[in-house]
Amino acid sequence: MKKIGLIGGIGWPSTIEYYQRICELSQKYHADIQHSGPTPMPEFSIESLDMNFTVNNRGGSSPDSWSVCDTYFNNALRKLEQSGAEIIAIASVTPHSRLKERSQGIQAPVLSIYDAIGAYCHNMGIRHLLVLGTMPTMTTTHFIKGVSNHDVKAFYPESEELKNQLIEIINNLYQNNVNSASRDIENLIRNFLSDTDLKQTAVCLACTELPIAFGDLGRQPQFMYNGISYLNSSFIHADAVFAECIR
Amino acid sequence: MKKIGLIGGIGWPSTIEYYQRICELSQKYHADIQHSGPTPMPEFSIESLDMNFTVNNRGGSSPDSWSVCDTYFNNALRKLEQSGAEIIAIASVTPHSRLKERSQGIQAPVLSIYDAIGAYCHNMGIRHLLVLGTMPTMTTTHFIKGVSNHDVKAFYPESEELKNQLIEIINNLYQNNVNSASRDIENLIRNFLSDTDLKQTAVCLACTELPIAFGDLGRQPQFMYNGISYLNSSFIHADAVFAECIR
Repeated sequence: MKKIGLIGGIGWPSTIEYYQRICELSQKYHADIQHSGPTPMPEFSIESLDMNFTVNNRGGSSPDSWSVCDTYFNNALRKLEQSGAEIIAIASVTPHSRLKERSQGIQAPVLSIYDAIGAYCHNMGIRHLLVLGTMPTMTTTHFIKGVSNHDVKAFYPESEELKNQLIEIINNLYQNNVNSASRDIENLIRNFLSDTDLKQTAVCLACTELPIAFGDLGRQPQFMYNGISYLNSSFIHADAVFAECIR
Repeated sequence: MKKIGLIGGIGWPSTIEYYQRICELSQKYHADIQHSGPTPMPEFSIESLDMNFTVNNRGGSSPDSWSVCDTYFNNALRKLEQSGAEIIAIASVTPHSRLKERSQGIQAPVLSIYDAIGAYCHNMGIRHLLVLGTMPTMTTTHFIKGVSNHDVKAFYPESEELKNQLIEIINNLYQNNVNSASRDIENLIRNFLSDTDLKQTAVCLACTELPIAFGDLGRQPQFMYNGISYLNSSFIHADAVFAECIR
């Protein structure tokens, strides 16, 4: 198995999701091939960053304004490479919007979450994807462009009001207030997608907090809930990392 | 905060315990000092090893027989140091029996779990410690010597039969068969310690699986159950790492 490098801490619960998922995949993989003895596990290097630093050093519309933050990620990627990581992933959606700048000079392949989701959708015959994520995700076209390479047409909630409603749901989940979150997400979706639209659209939960709204049901790459098909972006990305790790 | 280095993967659930605990401690610490904005988190470098390799390369009674395994750990510690870790911990009890050999040439302090537990007991007035761990822990004197520096008298289950019973409980927990494990642990303890002994003895759950027997109650440094005082070695160690991180 190839050594896996992970950029973590953005945020830390997401790092646990990726690490646990990949370890469980290795257990299942080795059980299926009837490996005896202690289960082989991929080696990992993980660089867990300080989200306070990344948030406080977020740039604006000028590309130069991102240099401190980009360098922070680039240094962490270099450390993973120096520690022998052969494939690398950033365990979070939002930082992918500047993946090209952040992975400058890194030789090991950095597996983009956009590519993982695009390839998953392509394989599953999903052509339309509603993306629910953080504001930096929903106000740039990187996600849409990334999955379009796989013939997937992605879009975000269409109004500022709906985007703000979603951010409020995410903030509540971040503080572990699950309450009616799954219903709130569903209402938000049905607000602008008809039943007919929903038959040919999957909903990508593109930030770590959102799947929490669905409890254990949300802990898989794809699941149905009240007739809506949801994708868990972390699981799809982690699954792609493990597939590459054993390839 | 100092950058934390962790050796993980021995086994992987334990790595999650340490990482999650330290992140939660940072959240609590910054909430208590009324920090506003995104919670600062310590940076981490984690080297997660392959437990199949460590088990298959275990040595025997001759010191030379451990060189492959010791080098594996030493290389990982070096990587943590090269990635800027300022304090390091191995997220597991068992590998500590060869900590001296494994940390040769490492400049950053490697916080021993024996010292963390010894200091904890000393502070809490615990002088007698029954240690329940894996066979490599219970058949060497490293744990006993380690905590004796803090005036703590540690001992293991006294017969081979009791040790084997304990290993069976651990193996069942490893496969997530919790069933009657907390009662089985209690029976094993009461088998050779009287109520009078138990009044002046704490029981150290010195492998990651054992606290699982007690559910959520086990997810803290110390807890009482049916009149017995238990210590969770992972939590005590992780707490010591965070204390050093902010010192």
